[in-house]
Amino acid sequence: MKKIIAVDMDNVLVDIETQMIDWYERDFGIRIDRSQMLGIPESDAFPNKQAVRDFCFTPGFFRTAPMMPGALDAIKTLMLDFEIYIVSAAMEFPQSLFEKTEWLKEYFPFISWKNIVFCGDKSIIDTHYLIDDHCKNLDFCKGKPILFTASHNVHHTHHIRVNDWAEVLDLFKKEVNSL
Amino acid sequence: MKKIIAVDMDNVLVDIETQMIDWYERDFGIRIDRSQMLGIPESDAFPNKQAVRDFCFTPGFFRTAPMMPGALDAIKTLMLDFEIYIVSAAMEFPQSLFEKTEWLKEYFPFISWKNIVFCGDKSIIDTHYLIDDHCKNLDFCKGKPILFTASHNVHHTHHIRVNDWAEVLDLFKKEVNSL
Repeated sequence: MKKIIAVDMDNVLVDIETQMIDWYERDFGIRIDRSQMLGIPESDAFPNKQAVRDFCFTPGFFRTAPMMPGALDAIKTLMLDFEIYIVSAAMEFPQSLFEKTEWLKEYFPFISWKNIVFCGDKSIIDTHYLIDDHCKNLDFCKGKPILFTASHNVHHTHHIRVNDWAEVLDLFKKEVNSL
Repeated sequence: MKKIIAVDMDNVLVDIETQMIDWYERDFGIRIDRSQMLGIPESDAFPNKQAVRDFCFTPGFFRTAPMMPGALDAIKTLMLDFEIYIVSAAMEFPQSLFEKTEWLKEYFPFISWKNIVFCGDKSIIDTHYLIDDHCKNLDFCKGKPILFTASHNVHHTHHIRVNDWAEVLDLFKKEVNSL
């Protein structure tokens, strides 16, 4: 049986940082540079923090977000050797639930609804690996935690880090060889 | 730390059988008796099976379903000794996701969004107990499986069975005493 990788959505499959920067520029005429977002909670980098938090409750925000570069081919490659579950902590934003299923249908139509999980916290998810940008999810996960780089997490050092999907593939090539 | 009980929604917290019978009568003028539903897949008991399957994709079907008798007080009592997660295989019906969060907000407002999980299959859910009406979920669950009686499952004999929420409380009183 294939080992299971749980893959987070926001900042891993979905480039939600770019979406925040784009929407903020559209609404406020200011383009935030990623260098201003390093090591702090995402919304703290924006002059109007509340506006960014409100984006998460705004129809269309999750549905129209771009895909993370390289995610599509990497997931297809990983599926040859692993079972992929999409595990998103979407429950805080109920309107995002339908949008996220529609987004997945558009970009990853080959992922079955059986392999999608929307949750609050991820502590009861049991997979062999979890790729996520948040230590709050990785610290308590039951499998091997893998930190996907996002601006907010650049200073965390206590998990294996991957900076992009190419590095994810490199890492799992080694895992396959060690199985 | 409290042990965790995963609680299914349809046919456990939510009286979806009654909702099916009510909607069928509303639309087709025929009231199906529960005795006709015993031991067969739910939709097979209805002359127009497809109509019943279509209900699951119809706005309002999940949102307006009644609560299972006794569920509210039982969940409140269980929460004294256990942590409760709501785990619903909702992903097959994407329009149900928002409806189910709204339903939970109405009937169980004290359950945090952090403790709600919508999934496809439940095989990657790891809790100490799972209360569910489907053997397909219970057969592979990582904790102690507890079969909640629904008409379709009356002939299954390979899991501990509870017939209603009073029996759930009786069972977990014994569990507390044995902890």
